[in-house]
Amino acid sequence: MALTPEQIAEVAEAAAHRMPTARPVVPALEAMLAQAIPVLDHGFIRVVDYMGDDAAVVQSARVSYGRGTKAANEDRGLIRYLMRHRHSTPFEMCEIKYHIKLPIFIARQWIRHRTANVNEYSARYSVLDREFYVPQPDQLAAQSSDNRQGRGAVLEGAEAERVLRLLRDDAMQTYDHYLEMLNEDEAGQPLDTSRSGLARELARMNLTLNTYTQWYWKTDLHNLLHFLSLRADAHAQYEIRVYAEAMLKTVQAWVPHCYEAFADYRMGAVTMSSQMLSIVRRMLAGEVVEQAGSGLSKREWRELMETLGRE
Amino acid sequence: MALTPEQIAEVAEAAAHRMPTARPVVPALEAMLAQAIPVLDHGFIRVVDYMGDDAAVVQSARVSYGRGTKAANEDRGLIRYLMRHRHSTPFEMCEIKYHIKLPIFIARQWIRHRTANVNEYSARYSVLDREFYVPQPDQLAAQSSDNRQGRGAVLEGAEAERVLRLLRDDAMQTYDHYLEMLNEDEAGQPLDTSRSGLARELARMNLTLNTYTQWYWKTDLHNLLHFLSLRADAHAQYEIRVYAEAMLKTVQAWVPHCYEAFADYRMGAVTMSSQMLSIVRRMLAGEVVEQAGSGLSKREWRELMETLGRE
Amino acid sequence: MALTPEQIAEVAEAAAHRMPTARPVVPALEAMLAQAIPVLDHGFIRVVDYMGDDAAVVQSARVSYGRGTKAANEDRGLIRYLMRHRHSTPFEMCEIKYHIKLPIFIARQWIRHRTANVNEYSARYSVLDREFYVPQPDQLAAQSSDNRQGRGAVLEGAEAERVLRLLRDDAMQTYDHYLEMLNEDEAGQPLDTSRSGLARELARMNLTLNTYTQWYWKTDLHNLLHFLSLRADAHAQYEIRVYAEAMLKTVQAWVPHCYEAFADYRMGAVTMSSQMLSIVRRMLAGEVVEQAGSGLSKREWRELMETLGRE
Amino acid sequence: MALTPEQIAEVAEAAAHRMPTARPVVPALEAMLAQAIPVLDHGFIRVVDYMGDDAAVVQSARVSYGRGTKAANEDRGLIRYLMRHRHSTPFEMCEIKYHIKLPIFIARQWIRHRTANVNEYSARYSVLDREFYVPQPDQLAAQSSDNRQGRGAVLEGAEAERVLRLLRDDAMQTYDHYLEMLNEDEAGQPLDTSRSGLARELARMNLTLNTYTQWYWKTDLHNLLHFLSLRADAHAQYEIRVYAEAMLKTVQAWVPHCYEAFADYRMGAVTMSSQMLSIVRRMLAGEVVEQAGSGLSKREWRELMETLGRE
Repeated sequence: MALTPEQIAEVAEAAAHRMPTARPVVPALEAMLAQAIPVLDHGFIRVVDYMGDDAAVVQSARVSYGRGTKAANEDRGLIRYLMRHRHSTPFEMCEIKYHIKLPIFIARQWIRHRTANVNEYSARYSVLDREFYVPQPDQLAAQSSDNRQGRGAVLEGAEAERVLRLLRDDAMQTYDHYLEMLNEDEAGQPLDTSRSGLARELARMNLTLNTYTQWYWKTDLHNLLHFLSLRADAHAQYEIRVYAEAMLKTVQAWVPHCYEAFADYRMGAVTMSSQMLSIVRRMLAGEVVEQAGSGLSKREWRELMETLGRE
Repeated sequence: MALTPEQIAEVAEAAAHRMPTARPVVPALEAMLAQAIPVLDHGFIRVVDYMGDDAAVVQSARVSYGRGTKAANEDRGLIRYLMRHRHSTPFEMCEIKYHIKLPIFIARQWIRHRTANVNEYSARYSVLDREFYVPQPDQLAAQSSDNRQGRGAVLEGAEAERVLRLLRDDAMQTYDHYLEMLNEDEAGQPLDTSRSGLARELARMNLTLNTYTQWYWKTDLHNLLHFLSLRADAHAQYEIRVYAEAMLKTVQAWVPHCYEAFADYRMGAVTMSSQMLSIVRRMLAGEVVEQAGSGLSKREWRELMETLGRE
Repeated sequence: MALTPEQIAEVAEAAAHRMPTARPVVPALEAMLAQAIPVLDHGFIRVVDYMGDDAAVVQSARVSYGRGTKAANEDRGLIRYLMRHRHSTPFEMCEIKYHIKLPIFIARQWIRHRTANVNEYSARYSVLDREFYVPQPDQLAAQSSDNRQGRGAVLEGAEAERVLRLLRDDAMQTYDHYLEMLNEDEAGQPLDTSRSGLARELARMNLTLNTYTQWYWKTDLHNLLHFLSLRADAHAQYEIRVYAEAMLKTVQAWVPHCYEAFADYRMGAVTMSSQMLSIVRRMLAGEVVEQAGSGLSKREWRELMETLGRE
Repeated sequence: MALTPEQIAEVAEAAAHRMPTARPVVPALEAMLAQAIPVLDHGFIRVVDYMGDDAAVVQSARVSYGRGTKAANEDRGLIRYLMRHRHSTPFEMCEIKYHIKLPIFIARQWIRHRTANVNEYSARYSVLDREFYVPQPDQLAAQSSDNRQGRGAVLEGAEAERVLRLLRDDAMQTYDHYLEMLNEDEAGQPLDTSRSGLARELARMNLTLNTYTQWYWKTDLHNLLHFLSLRADAHAQYEIRVYAEAMLKTVQAWVPHCYEAFADYRMGAVTMSSQMLSIVRRMLAGEVVEQAGSGLSKREWRELMETLGRE
């Protein structure tokens, strides 16, 4: 399960003792501060704090542009303009902090996004819990035959069972041995008072990469949207995509105008090369264009036809 | 003058309509949200928003260390430990956003600190006001004779008067010509309807570097403290130091434990090289050490003696 | 004038004493190391050093993908694939360092790109030269009437002459007064030995924003291309665009495959929102689509029609 | 083992075909380009490329200061001055790129340093080798009893043997199962043609954290020195410290003046708080100071006495 009893008490206390502030407040996101949104079998995301709202994006843009108008529908239009033209600095004026629990192999993908602040649970300092990710049967995919970093059909029958058993048994066994090397039982008591126990910073290396870790992760809205555009994408690995999708819900609650503009101009958008664009122009002019002679490789041609819904 | 009438109205409205939040709230800093702290002749700093407090630093550190203790005096001790040992990531979990008005030549120093988010007033887009920095007489310093980037004695008499007059007259004249090239009067009306007016993005180049600009500047507490350690230092140029000093007051109101630890372990701290340390050890052992044979250059020796109060 | 006599000597010495290296070497860029490419009336860019080449991008990608193939045409294909799919990290493995001389108001635009290393000439420490930017007559544009940050028609006749004279005279006068306040003549000698001279860190504030400064600017290829995509764009201010265009030539010499992919997939590319794409699909299916009912604002409709060449 | 046959061939070819360059060349580091320096049981570091040298640091500082002097002993003095006064930007003008092979749990520590460019071997895309870290007996340390993130005495006898056996057996078994789930043998051939094999991006999660990975890691000299000051420190975990120590040797070969200044002013330096400094001053004045009444906590007092060699 997700939060510790202490964290639950902390959240409950904050929810019960709301204090007045002159800063921007977003009631829809305030309602989420008390929740950990479950992800995968033992993970979660939880909004810990936030700074700014849709109006803060607009306010920053207006410092730059020196404008004085303030009507709400203009706010939406300005945000859409900023998103469309990739004026990123006003979106950097909002900040959000999450508490996230996730498997280590996903944490390793995630951390490649460098423009964020991170405090991770230290397995040098403390002992990790016996929690590890095992996929649901419908996510137990074979290697894709045509995409070296993709998934194919779902494994079934004996192969699926065998894989699940191996994942579970190896994680249990390596965790058992982790505790044994530490000379600790599940409650933190020595197993054998005549032994010292291996240093935590060494024993941790025996754990498998599906062991759960947790961290505080804080970033600004611009970098968050960039992260989500990559990780909520269909090409992202399923196990990180579900985190990104849970975070998208928090963005929608927090900054609805930014979310809408992001959905239209980033998530749903396509980029066409100069060659692709000239083919579209020729097609619109009534010309019949074939891959041969188009200047596009077969792969690019296929990508373009999919984009145009001509498959 | 500092804020525009619109900004004053905005601040007053926020102050009047405080809303409840479950996020950390710092009453001492809330009280400052309504204020623009004056700096130099026309500048100011103003806290626009903040995220986190002393407890948020502790909370992040405890995610890393998995600790459960919570007593307030332990919070102070943990913060001091983190500061002393330069564990910087927990301090990155707090964020602050300022609205700042400052002369352009100071903005150019400031912007070298890259780990921040910035939205500056655009003189491509809008017309700058007739506001420029002129030093107070007691800041009209001569070039230092022994420090190429420092100040010497204060100028006096005819030389001081001449300098002040040149600064004022040149700023007024270049601003007059700026408006003339724009073909605009002070109220934004055309001076001569038969002329087009030069593009704003070009006309701005005629302004002097003491013209005021303004920006929103947002950073995390760790990077803010690094900025302040350099810019609130005695070696910093006076005109940026006064901004840093005004910001220090906001830090003290916001995160008093962090501020105290910063004052003790960073602002008031000294770093000694291995050579300097071995000299101190020899002196403590009763040895009389001279610069010649100390292994230090004359300059370093002088620095060490000053540090030790032996001058 | 561009380089100092010392810099010219330094460059000539390096060119004359080439040394052998086992690192990647790009002869076409080596040839440019000795050159300062002139930009504007007194500015230049000059490549000081570089790390990596097209093959280094491929090599890094192949560490990630564990591949073993090496044929040259595959290199081109892999680079195009990386660019098309915005796999940015392999491009970060190349680095370039420029020496750039540019007007201060352009330096202020430039420095907003934070992911770079910069060492700028210090006017706290040294005296700036009497060099300032004055536009060529064909660049003396009026304010655009429909784009608040754009240029309209070129000014002509008396208005143009008046603008040029004001720019020149104000820059000359403020520079004269700068020297007078410093109590220095053009050769660095005191004007009046009975005066002290104002501190350099103060006197500089009297200079106008078209004064030239210079810096070393170093960045990786990914961030350089991002900079160039914004600053070599038609919407960028002319005075920074000419720097970006000069830098594009160095990129073409340095990493020709990356340059080609960048030209096709970034500079010449367009991004369509989900709404725009669905309109293109409807048009390709033979439907007549009008702005009214398209779901696009007038502004977006106009942008789309321009993109499709239907205006 | 370290490099692949292809990498060895690549390195040999580059070493054999040195090409002339007008860029700064450091013969001592060129000699290392062909070497992989072994670290731990299967790891290594190898310099792939570099930009700049001691003179490049000086050159950048002189752009800032506008100075013209060039004598070699002045270079050393200027570098020492820059290091002592934490003028970091000139050090950012040098860049280095390493190829590094390291255990995953160390890679996770390493990647917290965000100011670097990284391309890591992708286990989504390719299959990892059967290589994992097992400590040497003299590094098989018990948990420290007084430092929660430190090591105590070395384990001996049966406990040591048991730990080594568990680490080896669990790594072998989880790797065997990794291949079984992938349905691949060690040579990449299917084990059973009737099975599909689990997707690589999933199967990898069964590996233990001591499995080796590899990456290209590129950073500037300033950030490298910061990394080394933390990771070559006695408080760093042994398994990352040995990488840092190997890298220190490359820094010494590359930029000997910077290395010397770093050793004196950073690695060997101590920082004293304002309270500590005032105690030192009192002691130098002949006063006997005790912890009680010193204003220092017991912990800080102990740290100070150690620093002063009074234990």
